[in-house]
Amino acid sequence: MSEQSNLAAVLHGAKDLRLTKRPISAPAPGEAQVAIKATGLCGSDLHYYIHGRNGEYVLKTPMCLGHESAGIITAIGEGVTDYKVGERVAIEAGVYCGACRLCKTGRYNLCTKMRFNSSAKVFPHQDGSLQSLLNHPVTHLHKLPDSCSYEAAALVEPLSVVLHAARRAHIAAGQTVLVLGAGAVGLLALAVAKAHGATHTVVVDINEERVKFAVDEGFATSGYVLPRTPRPETSAAGLEAAKATAGDILTGYGPVDSDGFDVVMECTGVETCMQAAIHTARPGGKVVFIGMGTPNATLPISAAAFREVDLLGVFRYANTYPDALALFGSGRLPGVEKLVTTRFPLEKVNEAFEALLAGKDKDGNMIMKLMVGDY
Amino acid sequence: MSEQSNLAAVLHGAKDLRLTKRPISAPAPGEAQVAIKATGLCGSDLHYYIHGRNGEYVLKTPMCLGHESAGIITAIGEGVTDYKVGERVAIEAGVYCGACRLCKTGRYNLCTKMRFNSSAKVFPHQDGSLQSLLNHPVTHLHKLPDSCSYEAAALVEPLSVVLHAARRAHIAAGQTVLVLGAGAVGLLALAVAKAHGATHTVVVDINEERVKFAVDEGFATSGYVLPRTPRPETSAAGLEAAKATAGDILTGYGPVDSDGFDVVMECTGVETCMQAAIHTARPGGKVVFIGMGTPNATLPISAAAFREVDLLGVFRYANTYPDALALFGSGRLPGVEKLVTTRFPLEKVNEAFEALLAGKDKDGNMIMKLMVGDY
Amino acid sequence: MSEQSNLAAVLHGAKDLRLTKRPISAPAPGEAQVAIKATGLCGSDLHYYIHGRNGEYVLKTPMCLGHESAGIITAIGEGVTDYKVGERVAIEAGVYCGACRLCKTGRYNLCTKMRFNSSAKVFPHQDGSLQSLLNHPVTHLHKLPDSCSYEAAALVEPLSVVLHAARRAHIAAGQTVLVLGAGAVGLLALAVAKAHGATHTVVVDINEERVKFAVDEGFATSGYVLPRTPRPETSAAGLEAAKATAGDILTGYGPVDSDGFDVVMECTGVETCMQAAIHTARPGGKVVFIGMGTPNATLPISAAAFREVDLLGVFRYANTYPDALALFGSGRLPGVEKLVTTRFPLEKVNEAFEALLAGKDKDGNMIMKLMVGDY
Amino acid sequence: MSEQSNLAAVLHGAKDLRLTKRPISAPAPGEAQVAIKATGLCGSDLHYYIHGRNGEYVLKTPMCLGHESAGIITAIGEGVTDYKVGERVAIEAGVYCGACRLCKTGRYNLCTKMRFNSSAKVFPHQDGSLQSLLNHPVTHLHKLPDSCSYEAAALVEPLSVVLHAARRAHIAAGQTVLVLGAGAVGLLALAVAKAHGATHTVVVDINEERVKFAVDEGFATSGYVLPRTPRPETSAAGLEAAKATAGDILTGYGPVDSDGFDVVMECTGVETCMQAAIHTARPGGKVVFIGMGTPNATLPISAAAFREVDLLGVFRYANTYPDALALFGSGRLPGVEKLVTTRFPLEKVNEAFEALLAGKDKDGNMIMKLMVGDY
Repeated sequence: MSEQSNLAAVLHGAKDLRLTKRPISAPAPGEAQVAIKATGLCGSDLHYYIHGRNGEYVLKTPMCLGHESAGIITAIGEGVTDYKVGERVAIEAGVYCGACRLCKTGRYNLCTKMRFNSSAKVFPHQDGSLQSLLNHPVTHLHKLPDSCSYEAAALVEPLSVVLHAARRAHIAAGQTVLVLGAGAVGLLALAVAKAHGATHTVVVDINEERVKFAVDEGFATSGYVLPRTPRPETSAAGLEAAKATAGDILTGYGPVDSDGFDVVMECTGVETCMQAAIHTARPGGKVVFIGMGTPNATLPISAAAFREVDLLGVFRYANTYPDALALFGSGRLPGVEKLVTTRFPLEKVNEAFEALLAGKDKDGNMIMKLMVGDY
Repeated sequence: MSEQSNLAAVLHGAKDLRLTKRPISAPAPGEAQVAIKATGLCGSDLHYYIHGRNGEYVLKTPMCLGHESAGIITAIGEGVTDYKVGERVAIEAGVYCGACRLCKTGRYNLCTKMRFNSSAKVFPHQDGSLQSLLNHPVTHLHKLPDSCSYEAAALVEPLSVVLHAARRAHIAAGQTVLVLGAGAVGLLALAVAKAHGATHTVVVDINEERVKFAVDEGFATSGYVLPRTPRPETSAAGLEAAKATAGDILTGYGPVDSDGFDVVMECTGVETCMQAAIHTARPGGKVVFIGMGTPNATLPISAAAFREVDLLGVFRYANTYPDALALFGSGRLPGVEKLVTTRFPLEKVNEAFEALLAGKDKDGNMIMKLMVGDY
Repeated sequence: MSEQSNLAAVLHGAKDLRLTKRPISAPAPGEAQVAIKATGLCGSDLHYYIHGRNGEYVLKTPMCLGHESAGIITAIGEGVTDYKVGERVAIEAGVYCGACRLCKTGRYNLCTKMRFNSSAKVFPHQDGSLQSLLNHPVTHLHKLPDSCSYEAAALVEPLSVVLHAARRAHIAAGQTVLVLGAGAVGLLALAVAKAHGATHTVVVDINEERVKFAVDEGFATSGYVLPRTPRPETSAAGLEAAKATAGDILTGYGPVDSDGFDVVMECTGVETCMQAAIHTARPGGKVVFIGMGTPNATLPISAAAFREVDLLGVFRYANTYPDALALFGSGRLPGVEKLVTTRFPLEKVNEAFEALLAGKDKDGNMIMKLMVGDY
Repeated sequence: MSEQSNLAAVLHGAKDLRLTKRPISAPAPGEAQVAIKATGLCGSDLHYYIHGRNGEYVLKTPMCLGHESAGIITAIGEGVTDYKVGERVAIEAGVYCGACRLCKTGRYNLCTKMRFNSSAKVFPHQDGSLQSLLNHPVTHLHKLPDSCSYEAAALVEPLSVVLHAARRAHIAAGQTVLVLGAGAVGLLALAVAKAHGATHTVVVDINEERVKFAVDEGFATSGYVLPRTPRPETSAAGLEAAKATAGDILTGYGPVDSDGFDVVMECTGVETCMQAAIHTARPGGKVVFIGMGTPNATLPISAAAFREVDLLGVFRYANTYPDALALFGSGRLPGVEKLVTTRFPLEKVNEAFEALLAGKDKDGNMIMKLMVGDY
C-alpha cells in the first residue's frame, strides 16, 4: 500500500487550527490504518485550542488534537494477523513502553514513557485523531461489538477514566455514590456507578439544566442544584462553606442511616468541591479526584484521616476498553449515547471548537459532548 | 408485655412435623418480637423434613424449621431504642459470638460459635421461623425499604449467599459469568451477577423448563440445556466427560476472544459440574462453589492450578443484608420476586413440604421458590 | 469479690493531676480486673495534661489518662471462662458497639460509638489506665506470649497504629518505605515496615540524635537529617520548599531505578512534611498520614492524582493486637523494647509528665518512650 | 559483533544429553548476550532428562535445558540503552506476548503465547541456559545488587514461584504458615514466609534429614517428620488418613488458640498432602498448591468450602524478580544460599543430572539444590 491523502486538523498555535491535506504513509509493521468516524472533544483539546498549551505542556510544533475516537480499518501493516480491513475499532490513544515496572504490573497508565495522541508532553508531539486517517498499533485497537456505534466507541475514552475511577474506589453493588459535577464526565461517572450496581447515584452541580438532564435521563437517582454563591475570599471561610455544603447535601440527599456516601466521585476540579467531597464520604469511604483544576488544594485532611476516607486520584485508565465496550455492547449503559448532543464534520472543526468554547451550539442548545467526524 | 400465644411448626423427626400452639415469652433485652409474614423453604429445610437430619446434624429434640424470613415487629425488649413496633424487618438468622477473631474481622459467617435458626448443629437447637412469632436480637434485624415486599425480604437470605459469593469472586462490571444450575439459587446468582454489571450471564441446567425460565425472565443472557446422559461409572471417564461438557459450553456460549468465563458460580453441588466449572473458567478466573452435595470431590486440580483459577467456597454470608435490601429497594434486582412461584399459609405447612418434595404444586406447576407465611 | 483500694492519677484540669486513693468495684460480668504493670504515655496524654483538653475534646469532669498498657489479671467477672487470675494481658483501650456496619465489617476503629480509655470525647469520660487497677471487658484483653514483657505489651498500642497503617498501605516484602519523623511512632513504623519485609527503610527527621538512634539500632537502613530551616511564610514558597526537600531525599536516599518509595509513612503531622511525602512516593505508591497536627493542609494534589499516589489516613487500629503480640513473641521486632528509655512509678506520675514535657529526663537523656507503672 | 563459539548441553532424547560446541549469533535488537555463570536444575529439567518429556510436553527436536540462571552481559544488541557489557544479571526465562489481556493486566505468567526457556511446550522449542552463552531480551534481564551472588540470582527463579505464591495467599506480618515438603521449594517457601513477617513457619516432610536442615538452618520455627506409612489403597481411607495427619500436625504444631494455619503452602504435589493441607488451614485461611504431581485429585471440598478455605494454584510467577533481588540484596533472605549444596561445571553436566537422579552426590551428601555453571 502506498501513501494516502489525508485531511488533518492541525493546531499551529492558540486559535490557529488549520485544515490541511497531507499524505499519510502506509501503516508500519504492527499497525493498522484507521479511517476516523467520530472523535469526541474534551477539555484538554479545548485548552490547547485556546491557549496553544495545556497546563505545562506547550505546543512546540504543529500537532493534531483529538484522542476520543473510533473508526474502521482501511489497511494493515506487516505482521498483523488478528485485525483485518473493514473491522470497526475503538482507538486507545496512549501507547506505553511495555517494559517498565508499571507496565509489567498492569498500571500502564502511569508509564513515564507513555506516548499519548494529541499530547504535547512528548516531543516530537504525538498527533491526535482529528484527521481522516490515523496509523495506530493494533495492540491499542479494540474491536466493536456489533451493537456498538462509533459514537459510543468514541465515548469509551472518557468513560474509561470514570470506569478506572470506579475500579480504584471499588464501587460495589448496593453502594451509594455521590458525583460532584454534571458535565459529560460526571454523567459518565453516574452511568458507570449504576453499571456497578450502585443503588443511589446522587449528582450535584451549580447548573440546573445539567442536573435536570442527569435526573430526567436516569443517570442520577436524585440531584441537587448548588446555590451559586460568591466564592469566599479566605481559605478558612471557604473550608467552612465547603463543610456546610457537604452538610446540606447529606441532609437532603444522603443515604438513610448512614454517615455519608460510600464513594464520592469529584469531577469538577474546584477546590471547594474537593473539600466538600471529603465531608460527604462516610467513615471508611472513598473520594476519587477525577477533575483536576488546580495543582495545589487546601483539604480538611484530618476529616479524611480520622474517618479513614481514602483520597484517590486517577490518571487516565488502564485495561478499561474491553470491559467498557462489553458494557456498551450488552446494553448496560442505557442512555449514555444521549450525551452526544452536538456533531460537526471534520471540515467544520473550527466551528466545532468555537461552539465548545461558547458552551452552546448556534441554536443555543446545551453542549454535553461534541463529536467531530464523518458526518 | 406478657406471654403470647404462638403457632409453631415443630419437627419431631423424619416426616413428623407438628403444628403446635405454644406460648412465647416476651422479647428479652436487646430483642424484638417479630410476627413472621413470609418464610422461604430451602434444601436444608427439606433435608430435615425428610430425614430428621441435615448431613451430620441430627435432630435430637423437636425444632422449628425455617430461616429465610421477614415480618413486622410486634414488641420490643428492654434497651432497644433503634427499632419500634410496626417496623417491617428482614431477619438475619445467624447470631454470632462477636468476640472471636473471625467476628472481629468481619467474617462472622465463619464464627464457630454461631447459633443459626433452624440448625441442629448447636444444642439446644435454635428454633427457626416457621412460627407466627419469633424473638430475635435487633442487631440481626434489618429494616425494609418501603418498596420492598416481605417476600423479597425473605428472598434476601438465599440472595445473601450468592451476593457473598459474588463478592468473594470480585465480580465486576464488564465481566462474564457462568452459572451452573437454574434452580432458585442459580437464578439469584444470575440476578446478582447482573446487578454487579456482568455483561454475559450464561446459565446451564439439565432441566429445560428452568433454563427457559431463566432466559425468558431476563436472568440469563443465554442458556444451555445440558443433555441428561447416564452418569459415567469411573472417575476417569467422568473427568473426561466433564471436560467435554465444558468444551461444549465454551464453544456455544463462551465469551468472544476469551479462554473462558471470568467467574463460574457452581450451584448444583454435582461432582461433574464442579469439574466442568474449572474448565469453563478463564486463566486467572474464579470458580465459586455455592452448591455443596458431596463432602469429597475429584477435581482437575492441575487445570485449575496451571491457569490460576481460584477455587473459592462460600458458607452462608456476612454483611450482605443491608446491601441486598438496598438492591431490592432501588429496583436493581428486577424480576427476582417472580421466583416465588408457590405460597402456603403456615397452617398448611405439611402440604408445603410435600409439594416441595414433589417439586411441583398440586396443579403440576414448577416450584422455583416456595414460601410459607401469612397468606 | 468486694471493692478494692486503687491508686489513680486523675486529671482535674490543665497541669492539675492528682494521685488519689479510691475504691474500685469488682469486675462486672464479662470483665476482668487488671493490675496495671506498665502504661506508655503518648502525645494525646501530654496534650490533656498541659491544656486540660486534646484538640476539640475538653475535660468536663476529672479523668484518668493512659491507654497504652498491660498488666496481670487479679479478678474476673461473672461469665468469664476464657481468662483467669494470674494471666498477663495487653489492654486494647477502645470498646466499640459491635452492632454498627463498621463494627460488623471489621473496621471497628471507625465505630462512632467507640468508648476509648482516657478520651474526653465521650461523656461520662472513660477512665484510662494510669491507675493500679482497671476493670475492662475480656473481649478487649489479649494474652501475652511468655517471651513478651509488659513493656513490649504496652508498646503494642502505638505499634498497632503503625501496623494498621502498614496494612492499609499494603506494605509487602521487597518494598521500599520512607518514614518521616524519628520519634517513637516513626521508629515503630520503621520496625513494622521491616517486619513486613521492606528492604529499604529510610528515616528523615530534623533531630540528628533521633536519626542516629534509628540507624544505629537497626530500625532504618539509612537516615537523613533535615536542615532546620526557617518556615517559609507563604504557602506557595512552602510548597516549593517541600518539593525541594523531597528531591533531596530522593536523590540521596531514594530507591535505585525508581521514581520514589513504594510507601511513605508520614509521622510528623507537619504540613510541609505531608507535602514532601506526596513527592517522595513513586507513581502508584501510597502515603499514609499517621501524624496529624493540623485539621487542614494545603497539598500538591495534582502531584498525587496524576501519579495515582493514594492518600490514606489512619485512625487508631483494628484487629492488630493478636498479630502485634505474635510479632513480639516470635522475635520479629528486634530492638523495639529499646524505645522505652524512661520509667517512672505511678506514684511519680507528675514527674513523668514534666519530663515528657521537657523532652529529656532529669539527667538530660533523650526520651523516646516513657512508661509509668509498677517500677 | 560476529558469531561466537558456544558450549551447549543439548538434550536429544531420554538420557541423551550431548555437550556440543556450536556458534551463537550476535544478540538481536533488544537483546543482550549473557555469559551464564550459574544455572540451578529443577524437577522439570530432570523429567526431560529422564523421559525426554515433561508430562504432556514431548521433545520433538534437540533442546537445551535450564531456566534458573544468572550471568554477565558480554554483548548488547541494537537499540539497547539501559544495559551494558559487564553488568551482572538474573535471567527471567519466560518471554510473554505483551499484547493479550493477561499481559496487559500484569498476569503475564498466564499468557498463552509465553515462550519459556527449556520448555518443549512451544515449537520450535525454546533453548534453555545450560550453555555458556545465551541471547535474551533485556526486558527480561534484571540487574543484580552488588551483594547478590550469581548463585543467589539463579535461586531467584524457584524463589519467584514461592514469592508469587506468598503474594497470591496474601501472607502478612504476624501470620502462621505451614509448608508441606522440605525440599528446595519448601525451604524457599519458608524463607519467603519469614520475609513476609510470618511468626510461625512450620515444616512437614517424611525425610528427617530435610526437616532437621530446615529447622537447624532457621527456615522453620518447628518441623514434623511425617511417619512413612503404607499408602492406603482406597480413596476413602486415604481421605481419612489425610485428615488424621492434619489433626496430628495441628495438635503438635498448630498455632495457639486457633483452628489452623493462616496459610498452607503445599509443595509436594502428593494427593494425600493436598488433602491434609485443606484440613490444616484455619477457617478463612488459604491453601496454595505449589507442587503439582497429579492432574486430578480427590479433595475434601466441603471441608474447604464450609470454612471458606481458598484453594489457589500458582503457575510460575510475574513481577517477582526485582523484589526477590531486593530481598537478597538487603539480607532479608538469610541462609538461603545454603540451599546450594552441590555444584558442577557445565562440562560435567551429565554427572550433574545423574547425581540429581540419585538424590545424593558421589560422597553421599544430600542434594538440596544443584547448580551447573562456571565452576
